[in-house]
Amino acid sequence: MNAVYVAGVGMTKFGRSSQSLTELFCEAVSRAVSTSSIQDVDALYIGAMNPEEFTGDSNIASQVAEALGMTGVPALRVETASSAGAAALHAAYQAVASGYYRHVLVLGGEKMTHLSTSATTRILAGVIDRQERQCGATMPALAAMITERYRKKYRLSRSHLERVLCRVAMKNHLNGTHNPWAQFQRPISEEIYFSSKFVSTPLRLYDCSPITDGAAAVLLTAERTDLVISGIGQGTGPLSLRERDSFTSFRATQVAAARAYQMAGISPKEIDFAEVHDAFTPFEIICTEDLEFFPAGKGWQAVEAGATSLGGALPINPSGGLKSRGHPVGATGVAQFVEVVEQLRGNSKAKLKREASRGLAQSTGGLGSNNFVTIVERSDRSRTVQNLWTPPPHYPVRPHVSVKKPTVPPSDEGRIETFTVLYVTPDGFLPPLALALIRDAQGPLVMARGEDISHLKIGREVYLRQVAGGYFFTVKSHLRKVREALKKLIGEIPSLRRKKKVVRTKRESA
Amino acid sequence: MNAVYVAGVGMTKFGRSSQSLTELFCEAVSRAVSTSSIQDVDALYIGAMNPEEFTGDSNIASQVAEALGMTGVPALRVETASSAGAAALHAAYQAVASGYYRHVLVLGGEKMTHLSTSATTRILAGVIDRQERQCGATMPALAAMITERYRKKYRLSRSHLERVLCRVAMKNHLNGTHNPWAQFQRPISEEIYFSSKFVSTPLRLYDCSPITDGAAAVLLTAERTDLVISGIGQGTGPLSLRERDSFTSFRATQVAAARAYQMAGISPKEIDFAEVHDAFTPFEIICTEDLEFFPAGKGWQAVEAGATSLGGALPINPSGGLKSRGHPVGATGVAQFVEVVEQLRGNSKAKLKREASRGLAQSTGGLGSNNFVTIVERSDRSRTVQNLWTPPPHYPVRPHVSVKKPTVPPSDEGRIETFTVLYVTPDGFLPPLALALIRDAQGPLVMARGEDISHLKIGREVYLRQVAGGYFFTVKSHLRKVREALKKLIGEIPSLRRKKKVVRTKRESA
Repeated sequence: MNAVYVAGVGMTKFGRSSQSLTELFCEAVSRAVSTSSIQDVDALYIGAMNPEEFTGDSNIASQVAEALGMTGVPALRVETASSAGAAALHAAYQAVASGYYRHVLVLGGEKMTHLSTSATTRILAGVIDRQERQCGATMPALAAMITERYRKKYRLSRSHLERVLCRVAMKNHLNGTHNPWAQFQRPISEEIYFSSKFVSTPLRLYDCSPITDGAAAVLLTAERTDLVISGIGQGTGPLSLRERDSFTSFRATQVAAARAYQMAGISPKEIDFAEVHDAFTPFEIICTEDLEFFPAGKGWQAVEAGATSLGGALPINPSGGLKSRGHPVGATGVAQFVEVVEQLRGNSKAKLKREASRGLAQSTGGLGSNNFVTIVERSDRSRTVQNLWTPPPHYPVRPHVSVKKPTVPPSDEGRIETFTVLYVTPDGFLPPLALALIRDAQGPLVMARGEDISHLKIGREVYLRQVAGGYFFTVKSHLRKVREALKKLIGEIPSLRRKKKVVRTKRESA
Repeated sequence: MNAVYVAGVGMTKFGRSSQSLTELFCEAVSRAVSTSSIQDVDALYIGAMNPEEFTGDSNIASQVAEALGMTGVPALRVETASSAGAAALHAAYQAVASGYYRHVLVLGGEKMTHLSTSATTRILAGVIDRQERQCGATMPALAAMITERYRKKYRLSRSHLERVLCRVAMKNHLNGTHNPWAQFQRPISEEIYFSSKFVSTPLRLYDCSPITDGAAAVLLTAERTDLVISGIGQGTGPLSLRERDSFTSFRATQVAAARAYQMAGISPKEIDFAEVHDAFTPFEIICTEDLEFFPAGKGWQAVEAGATSLGGALPINPSGGLKSRGHPVGATGVAQFVEVVEQLRGNSKAKLKREASRGLAQSTGGLGSNNFVTIVERSDRSRTVQNLWTPPPHYPVRPHVSVKKPTVPPSDEGRIETFTVLYVTPDGFLPPLALALIRDAQGPLVMARGEDISHLKIGREVYLRQVAGGYFFTVKSHLRKVREALKKLIGEIPSLRRKKKVVRTKRESA
């Protein structure tokens, strides 16, 4: 394999833009080309998640080639949901490594802010499993369910978890203040974080990356430059939450990272800093564990210890991450790479404790179903990349004869594996919406809607019933039965109980 | 570059299917894997044009990996409109040629028949230029305008052109009778062709490829097999009709072909047969000229002489082509490759005059805006591929500062460059709809709607007016003025004139 080097990089300001998607692409390319000595390219590899539905444009690769004044030049689009930019980089890497092309321009972009939040939420939810989507699940809802599971597994109290997530949000917003391309360049306080509304418990608005317009571009070349891509890897994971072995890690990241480290011939300890896919604050923590920066279940401790801060031992998202830089889905994978390159070249205003010579970018597609890891190094420090590379393990092909899952009706009882209460619901669902992953008495997992939002807890037993293809659950609870009986008798009991609780909490905190 | 070989290939029956898109993918993969000694793969490269809008599924790469029982394996989707399958093949080629992967499974598929024709037409029209789309132009309409221009340029009478197109349709339907995977496996007669309705003049229903469901799969490998990919190339062309230098050839095919031939170290004369993208019958003719099988403007003569028939000197579309095999857009580029491989391996029931050792597949994205050419040869006949490969010419990057075209109002007069009358109109437009490309007195080309469908002819002068962002034209005609004046006077003149004509025709034929 030929070594693949990095020439120019560039991006647009992320945020709300009046420019069209092709104009954003052109602006990013202008910057990437102007910061490079290479002025000619052989091909365009474009990452975009869903311009068809976001802006009504198909055939985006040809469109961009024409807009760049490059009609004739080979141009193709690569897509893997929200990691589309990283996927384009991956395919372009192979094109240059093969010797088929010498200089390839990689672009990533998306235009999203012109649509309503509910329309955008619907398009983004298209990447998750159909059955889970039909229950009303959205990306934040599933992320919240993963978070609740993480909290339970690693025995964090609810308030402790919230403080940790707040730390991640505050860190990334603080880092973003140094980034002129970031959507948000203002720090946030604890008060701001805790006063923000729940999107899906336990995730608040400040735990979720924003809706953003933007584009980024990278020029890859076979000619030696100061920076080389020393490792690159991709992995997939199950689309649905209910098909996973683990809810607290992403196998797709682990597979991608193993390859990237093997190829670069380094261990995770040798990474100086990383840009990771913090579409949700808890995902940054899980990602640092999947990348083996910290042991599983210890990522939150690293956040608390300040290890991932700008001045820490292993800065995570010095650019501000998706949280403050913004998340134009197709652009993000390329933008992360741009940030890593700018940091390694000393062009970033976010100064690390010590000069970095090796950075990592991690991108997540969908709910961690299609992830990428890329390692960039200073060429003078890089080891002999090619010799260390061995082919990845092979995967046997086992196509299901029929993909249709047997429609065995689940039993009418089960146990809550994880849950959330969703406050920003997709069209057709009224908030608050209780969602839970129920482990059926028979074994399989089922995503179900709750009859109400009270008494939710991991491990709690529920009644399960199927209505028109969807599942509904009701928590088995003696208290509930008693309450309902009392309700019938007096009517206002719930409000009385709520008042009592408040009093008790005050007493405790006093 | 490592040589890239072909292991197993497979496809589903094309047509209307009750299976889901992922089920179609699984079926095609089962066949490809069962015909190969390789059972393990390193990655999936998937071509699909628009599953988001056709079936409401995003994140198709992860979905397919999961459905194949291959969760974990890297999977990405590549898209270049209707050539998406060929684009996936192209990217997978580079992945294997680089040595990054050894065995890559390439998939192409689309599910389209469950939607109404108008919904499908709208989705397919998304690939054409926005301004042209807003006039009511569809893929068949633009193809028809290209055809009319070809007829005029190469001085074919209207009836002569129709006979030529009928020959292409009949040939491909006849070839399809040998193909068990084809959507239509019945020959058509001249009567059937000429009794079929106009979709967009001069194109009839039997000039257009059908709406189809289907999938195809190819296993590429770095391990030597009987067949090798000796040449592969991609090129783009302008999205809009009005930005083209030529209306009678596709630059994208020419660019792609030049590279593929150079890489394989062969001339077009050395190709034994080809599968080309006959989404419309005239495109097969133009394609054989762009591939330099025949000189420009002579392709129709080759059809008439039978050179492109199964028993001819250079059989084109022995599989039946898109016309009779069907055209599930994302699948087609891979299916063409499957057909070439099956023909080279002697597995095809469509027997050529002499045994073939070298076949070519050509795929078209959008209105010829993103095209691919791939050459497959018997490994024992292939020359030293790598040594013949030189890097392609470089393209300078010249991003427009602003993509917005200056909105100079065109002058109020112009001349018809080409035209069509569209009978299958998109939603919001009533048939028959006259569309013409008008060369403005100032020079630029404008797509415009006609006030009526009479007096259309290339070169005719028109009045042009702009209404709510769209353009309308009226043919300048003394006859029209006279007729309108007479109409005012008597009223029924047009019907009188029509009767007279009928009488005269009868007298002549008597």
